[in-house]
Amino acid sequence: MFLCDIGNTSYHFLRDEKDFKEDVSSFDPALIKEKIYYICVNKKIKYILKDLENWIDLSKKIDMSKYYETMGIDRIVASRAVTDGVIVDAGSAITVDVVKNGKFIGGFIYPGQRAMSKTYKDISPALDYEFNFDIDLNTLPKNSIDAISYGFLKTLHNEVISYNMPIVLTGGDAKEFQKIFIDARVDENLIFCGMKNIITLFEKKLAL
Amino acid sequence: MFLCDIGNTSYHFLRDEKDFKEDVSSFDPALIKEKIYYICVNKKIKYILKDLENWIDLSKKIDMSKYYETMGIDRIVASRAVTDGVIVDAGSAITVDVVKNGKFIGGFIYPGQRAMSKTYKDISPALDYEFNFDIDLNTLPKNSIDAISYGFLKTLHNEVISYNMPIVLTGGDAKEFQKIFIDARVDENLIFCGMKNIITLFEKKLAL
Repeated sequence: MFLCDIGNTSYHFLRDEKDFKEDVSSFDPALIKEKIYYICVNKKIKYILKDLENWIDLSKKIDMSKYYETMGIDRIVASRAVTDGVIVDAGSAITVDVVKNGKFIGGFIYPGQRAMSKTYKDISPALDYEFNFDIDLNTLPKNSIDAISYGFLKTLHNEVISYNMPIVLTGGDAKEFQKIFIDARVDENLIFCGMKNIITLFEKKLAL
Repeated sequence: MFLCDIGNTSYHFLRDEKDFKEDVSSFDPALIKEKIYYICVNKKIKYILKDLENWIDLSKKIDMSKYYETMGIDRIVASRAVTDGVIVDAGSAITVDVVKNGKFIGGFIYPGQRAMSKTYKDISPALDYEFNFDIDLNTLPKNSIDAISYGFLKTLHNEVISYNMPIVLTGGDAKEFQKIFIDARVDENLIFCGMKNIITLFEKKLAL
């Protein structure tokens, strides 16, 4: 099975359990001649792929009524990789989605670490620090670095652990966030797992 | 007693329980001839006031060892207005400080609503919404406006109520935040209450 998750900067492929990336600005998708399933948040690339018959848009195979209209396709597909749990996708934004008995319950969006760091810096140059992921979240801070790190991390942490469910971390900053979600499982290919589950279900329906 | 809290944009005065504001760019502090106690986070104004003998810098009367070096004077003084409680000062940043038995325990800094709104917008134009302060914080969102409102408000709410202490709201956005901290007391002149407590203590010591 050949899969591709297309973002704003890169094509992320998975073939035979091996993943690799190509740049959206330089890679020509017409070079791929095999059947490939994809999801895409990049409008320009989506337009190009419409004319390539071997590129199959997985978003067309999903019952969208279970989600909401403006929900990102990457969140929807990741939520299909989990039966019971909280998915924390830590990238430019941090999306937190809860799935119970295979059903999407709801989710929220929190700023990612680079965005949030810029926010503090813009509020005051005195708050221009990198976040301390090794912070003790059980003690109220008494210095500026920890005061912003706690503000960013503890608040998110409280909410995510409040569901008392297994936590799955994915996205570019997953490993960093494991420092505060110590029991979480990191799965950088969670999106591909969700894609496979959708394809399996779709092929089962076709076989009926 | 004549008091003044000086920020980056305005002088905030309190005389005989009446408060009023003057613009930092146009007001001349030398016009005031009476004895006046002040705190100031504005470096330029601080420099001007040094030469005016009737302007008394309250930050010089505080035992700073109970706080931390880079902690804002406004947070320190506000924490002197409360014996037991959580102070939520909602302005360009939201500072949250915990006081127990009159002692500062610690605190954290969270972005204010305008800063956070800009953060979401900068992450994606699809997240360019005003926050919904009427959101139900007990239900996980299923639309974009609530997904960011919950991300901003629920996470902060969880942490603040976790202390199980009385909540005092102050700062320019205090009234808006009362929608999510429904049991909180709003005190827009909390800083003046802290200033008075410091002056009383200081005058008591002088009288001994």
